[in-house]
Amino acid sequence: TMQHLFKQIFQASLELQEDDNRKALLVSRKKKPEDTIVDLKGEKVGDGQQRLIMGPCSVESYEQVYEVASAMKEQGLNLLRGGAFKPRSSPYDFQGLGKEGLEILRRTADELDMSVISEIMNPKDVEMAADYVDVIQIGARNMQNFDLLKEAGSHQTPVLLKRGLSATIDEFMKAAEYVLANGNNNLILCERGIRTYEKATRNTLDISAVPILKKETHLPVFVDVTHSTGRRDLLEPTAKAALAIGADGVMAEVHPDPAVALSDSAQQMDIDQFHSFVKNLRDTGLYK
Amino acid sequence: TMQHLFKQIFQASLELQEDDNRKALLVSRKKKPEDTIVDLKGEKVGDGQQRLIMGPCSVESYEQVYEVASAMKEQGLNLLRGGAFKPRSSPYDFQGLGKEGLEILRRTADELDMSVISEIMNPKDVEMAADYVDVIQIGARNMQNFDLLKEAGSHQTPVLLKRGLSATIDEFMKAAEYVLANGNNNLILCERGIRTYEKATRNTLDISAVPILKKETHLPVFVDVTHSTGRRDLLEPTAKAALAIGADGVMAEVHPDPAVALSDSAQQMDIDQFHSFVKNLRDTGLYK
Amino acid sequence: TMQHLFKQIFQASLELQEDDNRKALLVSRKKKPEDTIVDLKGEKVGDGQQRLIMGPCSVESYEQVYEVASAMKEQGLNLLRGGAFKPRSSPYDFQGLGKEGLEILRRTADELDMSVISEIMNPKDVEMAADYVDVIQIGARNMQNFDLLKEAGSHQTPVLLKRGLSATIDEFMKAAEYVLANGNNNLILCERGIRTYEKATRNTLDISAVPILKKETHLPVFVDVTHSTGRRDLLEPTAKAALAIGADGVMAEVHPDPAVALSDSAQQMDIDQFHSFVKNLRDTGLYK
Amino acid sequence: TMQHLFKQIFQASLELQEDDNRKALLVSRKKKPEDTIVDLKGEKVGDGQQRLIMGPCSVESYEQVYEVASAMKEQGLNLLRGGAFKPRSSPYDFQGLGKEGLEILRRTADELDMSVISEIMNPKDVEMAADYVDVIQIGARNMQNFDLLKEAGSHQTPVLLKRGLSATIDEFMKAAEYVLANGNNNLILCERGIRTYEKATRNTLDISAVPILKKETHLPVFVDVTHSTGRRDLLEPTAKAALAIGADGVMAEVHPDPAVALSDSAQQMDIDQFHSFVKNLRDTGLYK
Repeated sequence: TMQHLFKQIFQASLELQEDDNRKALLVSRKKKPEDTIVDLKGEKVGDGQQRLIMGPCSVESYEQVYEVASAMKEQGLNLLRGGAFKPRSSPYDFQGLGKEGLEILRRTADELDMSVISEIMNPKDVEMAADYVDVIQIGARNMQNFDLLKEAGSHQTPVLLKRGLSATIDEFMKAAEYVLANGNNNLILCERGIRTYEKATRNTLDISAVPILKKETHLPVFVDVTHSTGRRDLLEPTAKAALAIGADGVMAEVHPDPAVALSDSAQQMDIDQFHSFVKNLRDTGLYK
Repeated sequence: TMQHLFKQIFQASLELQEDDNRKALLVSRKKKPEDTIVDLKGEKVGDGQQRLIMGPCSVESYEQVYEVASAMKEQGLNLLRGGAFKPRSSPYDFQGLGKEGLEILRRTADELDMSVISEIMNPKDVEMAADYVDVIQIGARNMQNFDLLKEAGSHQTPVLLKRGLSATIDEFMKAAEYVLANGNNNLILCERGIRTYEKATRNTLDISAVPILKKETHLPVFVDVTHSTGRRDLLEPTAKAALAIGADGVMAEVHPDPAVALSDSAQQMDIDQFHSFVKNLRDTGLYK
Repeated sequence: TMQHLFKQIFQASLELQEDDNRKALLVSRKKKPEDTIVDLKGEKVGDGQQRLIMGPCSVESYEQVYEVASAMKEQGLNLLRGGAFKPRSSPYDFQGLGKEGLEILRRTADELDMSVISEIMNPKDVEMAADYVDVIQIGARNMQNFDLLKEAGSHQTPVLLKRGLSATIDEFMKAAEYVLANGNNNLILCERGIRTYEKATRNTLDISAVPILKKETHLPVFVDVTHSTGRRDLLEPTAKAALAIGADGVMAEVHPDPAVALSDSAQQMDIDQFHSFVKNLRDTGLYK
Repeated sequence: TMQHLFKQIFQASLELQEDDNRKALLVSRKKKPEDTIVDLKGEKVGDGQQRLIMGPCSVESYEQVYEVASAMKEQGLNLLRGGAFKPRSSPYDFQGLGKEGLEILRRTADELDMSVISEIMNPKDVEMAADYVDVIQIGARNMQNFDLLKEAGSHQTPVLLKRGLSATIDEFMKAAEYVLANGNNNLILCERGIRTYEKATRNTLDISAVPILKKETHLPVFVDVTHSTGRRDLLEPTAKAALAIGADGVMAEVHPDPAVALSDSAQQMDIDQFHSFVKNLRDTGLYK
C-alpha cells in the first residue's frame, strides 16, 4: 500500500511534467486552445469541413497534370498536389522535373483556380518555391531536416509537414515546433504511415495518431492514404477510416495512366477510379 | 527493355504463385467466396450488421460482471466478454479467477440471455470451456500456440482468434488455417494492434489489416480498440474508424470502477462512458 | 533550475523504483549475485567457459542425427539439439516426428554420451519429455505460453527459454521468472533475434541483450545465431560477436545435407561447414 | 514436384536479378572487389587495422575538446570527432556552436596532429566545412537528405555516412551510392543502431549489418556504440562485438565531465572510463 501510494504520486508527477513540457510548445493546444485554420485561396483548411488533396505522384507534363486537375475540378476539389523535386532511394531513379515541374503546377492551378502543394527538399529552394506553390510540403525523409524546417518557418508560405518514416508522435510535434518557433503559423500535419515489420502494406497507417495530434495540437491533420498503404485497393477504405476518425482531410495520388507513371505506379488511381473514389466517400456521408 | 520485360514476367509469376498458395488455404475467399457467418444464439456475426463485444478485462465478481452486462443489455448488446484465465507478463500479477470466472460469466449470460466470449490458454481446458462459453478466445500471445489452435479446431465451439503482437497478416491467416484445417469453421478474426516503436499508444492499431483480411478471407473481422490503443480517450475515435473501414464489429472493455480494476485500469470505460460510447457511435450513423 | 532539480529527483526515484521491482525478482542478480550454473552431465553451463549447442533443425532420422552428433563429438562438443515437436506457421508444413524424434535424440545421445536439448510446446508433454531430454527448450512463439512456463517450472529438468519474437528484455525476464517462481532454478536464456522492419536478415540479432541479461540476471545466456540471422554466411561472424560480448554459449544448426532438410534449409550448415565453423572460432581465440 | 521445380527456377531468377541490380551499383563489391581505403593524414581507414574514432558529443569549448583530444593522443588515437552543428529533436535544445565549433576542432587537431570528423547538415555548408574538417559526417537523420548527399558527393572531402534510424541495409547502400555517383569515392559507412520496439537501449545495434555491408560493398564499415546503445555500461561490450565481427572501427563519445554535457550526458564516457575502455579492448586482443 505504501508502495502503491508512492506509485500514484510518481505517476501523477510524471504526467504533470509531461503536460508542462507540452504546454510550453507553440504547437500545443494548451498554449492555443482554438483550431488553427490555414487559408488556401478561400479554402479554410482546418475549419471542420474535411478536404481532399489530390494529384499525381510526380509532375511529368502539363498535359498529365491538367488532365488530373480538371477531373478534380469536376468534383469541386481545389487542392492540387504534385511532385517536382522527388526524394528517391536510388540516384538512378527519376528525380523529378524540378523548377519546370513547379511551373507546370502553377500554370495549371492558375488556369483552373486551384492551390498547389509540392515538396521542397533543399533549404535554398524555399524562397524560390513561394513564387510557385501555395503550400510547401516537407516530406517524411526530411521531417528532421532541421535547416529546412527553420527556413520554411521563416517565411509565411503555408507548410504541410509529413511524419517521418519512424518518427514518434512526440518527435513529429517537435519538428512542427521548429516551423512555428521560426514565425510561421500556417502549418498542416500529415500522417503517412510508419515503418513496421508488416509487409502487406508499404507502411503501417497509424490511424490513432490522428486523434492524438488533434488533441495535443491545434493544427490541421491530414492522412496520406497513398504512401501509408502503397496499395490502390486500400485507398478508399483507409480514406473512410481517416474521415471517420476526425482527420481534417485526406491526401491521395491520381495519375491519368498509372501503369506508365514515372514513380509509384502501383499505388495511384486512374481518373475513373478517382471519380468513383470521391463518389463513394460522398455516398457514405463521411465526405461532404 | 529486355530487363523490363523480364521484370514484368517475374512480377506476374510472383503474384500468380502467391495467389495459388492463398487459394489453397481454407480461410481464403478464393476457396469460399461467400462470407462466413458465426451464429451466436441468433446474433449472426459477419452478416453485414456491425456488432459490439464488450465487458470487463478480468472477471472479478458476479456483481461486477452483472453490472456491466445489464448496462449492455440496456443498449441491446448481447455479446459479453470477460477474462477468467489471464495471460500476465509477470507471475506476480493477478492471474484470473479461472473456472470460477467462467461460471460467473455463464450465470450472468444465462440470466440476461447473452453470449459469453472468454480466453482459454491451455489446450486441456478447451473441452471444459465449451460448457461455459459460446466463443473461445485465443489471445495474441497464443496466436502461434499451435497445440491450442489444433485443439480449438477439433471442437465446434466458435473461436475468436486475435492477431499476435508482431504477427504478419500472412502468419495470422495461417494460424486461422490451423482451426479450419482441424474441422472448425466457426472462426472470427480480431485485429488488436501490433508492436511498434511508437509509445503514445500501447500498441499500434493496424487499421489497414481489416480490409485486407476481409478481401483475403471469408471470415468475420473485429477490431479490439482497447488493447490496440491502451487509452480510454482513443476508444471512441478508433471504434469509428473500425466501423467506417468495414469491420464486422468492435471489441472494447468496460468496468464498473476502472480505477480499482485488477488489470488494465487505464484503458477501460466506466458505465457512463460506455453509454456515451454506444450513443456516440449511433449518432454518427456508423453503428446502427 | 527549479525544474532541473525536480527532474533529477524524479529521475532518481524512477530508477529506484525500477531497481526495487527487479531486485524482487528471483531471476535478478540483485537477489542472487553469483552466477547460476546448469549442470548437464558434467558440462557446467554458465561456469565461464563458453559452449556450443548444435544439431539439426528437425530430427528426420536416426542416421541424420547420428551423423551430425558424431561430427560434434569429433570436435569435443556434447550438447546436441534437434527439433521433434516443430512450431510451424502453416498447418501444412512438416510438424516434426514428435515422440519418435525424442527417442532418436535420446538413443544417439546415449550412444555418444551427449546431452539432448529439444523443444516442447504442450504443457502435457513436459513430464513425458523428462524421460528423453536433458534440457527442455521453450521456443520464441511460446515465451508467453504461461501454462507451459508454469509446468516446466514445476519440474527439475533444465529449461532453455528463447526470447519471444517481439518480447522486450523486461518481458523476457518476467517469463523466466515464471519458471523460477514455480521451483525450477535450472534455467538458460537464449537471445534469438527480434522482429524488425529489416529484411536482409530473418530477424535482427539484438546483441546488446546479452550484456544486459548478464548484468540484470544470474542466468546463463546463449545466442542462437541460426534463427537470428537466417543466413548461413552470417553464422560465423555473429558467433564471434556473441562470444566476444560475453555470451555463455552459441546455438547453431547443422544438417548432413541442408538442401533436402525438411525445415529451414537455407540457414543450416553442412558437416564440412560445421567443422570449419568450429575451427575458425577456435583460431580467433574467442572459443576455446 | 512441378510446383517445386517452378519455385526453384523462380528463386534462382529472383536472386540473379537482385545480384544484377547490386552489381550495377558503384558501392558494390561486385563492381570493385578490392577494399576502399580512406587515407586520413596517413591513417588508412579500411586497410585491415581496426581504428577508434572518439571525442565529445558536442563541442562546447576549446578546453573541453583539448582535454579529450590529448587523452586520445596518449592512447595513440588520431581520429577526433565532435559535433558543431547538432541535429536536435526540439528547437529549444542546444543546437551546437556551428562554425565556431569547427574552428575549435581544427585548432585542437592541428596542435595535436589529428584528423577531425564533424557533422554537416546543410548542403550549403559542405564547401565551407572542407576548410575545417577531414571527414564530413552525414548523420542518421540526414541519410536520405539527397541534396546533402549530392553536394558531399561532388567534393573530395571524405564522408562518413551513418545509417538512418529506420533505413534498411539496401536503402543505406543506395544512399551511399549518391555520394559515389557524384564523384566522391572517399566514403566510410557507419552502423549506429536502428529503431525498434525495445526500450532497454536507445536504439537496437544491428550487428549483423557489419558483415553484410562488408560483403556487399567495398567500403570501410564502422560501428557507433554510443548512439546504438545510449548506455555507458554497454559501450565496451558492444565495441568488443563490433571488433570481433569485423568492423573497420568503432566510434564512441568521451566527455571530460559527462554529467554537465550539453547533450547526451547519459551515454558519454569520462576520461578515466575512456582510458579503461581502450585498455580493456587491447587486453582482449581484439584491438591492437
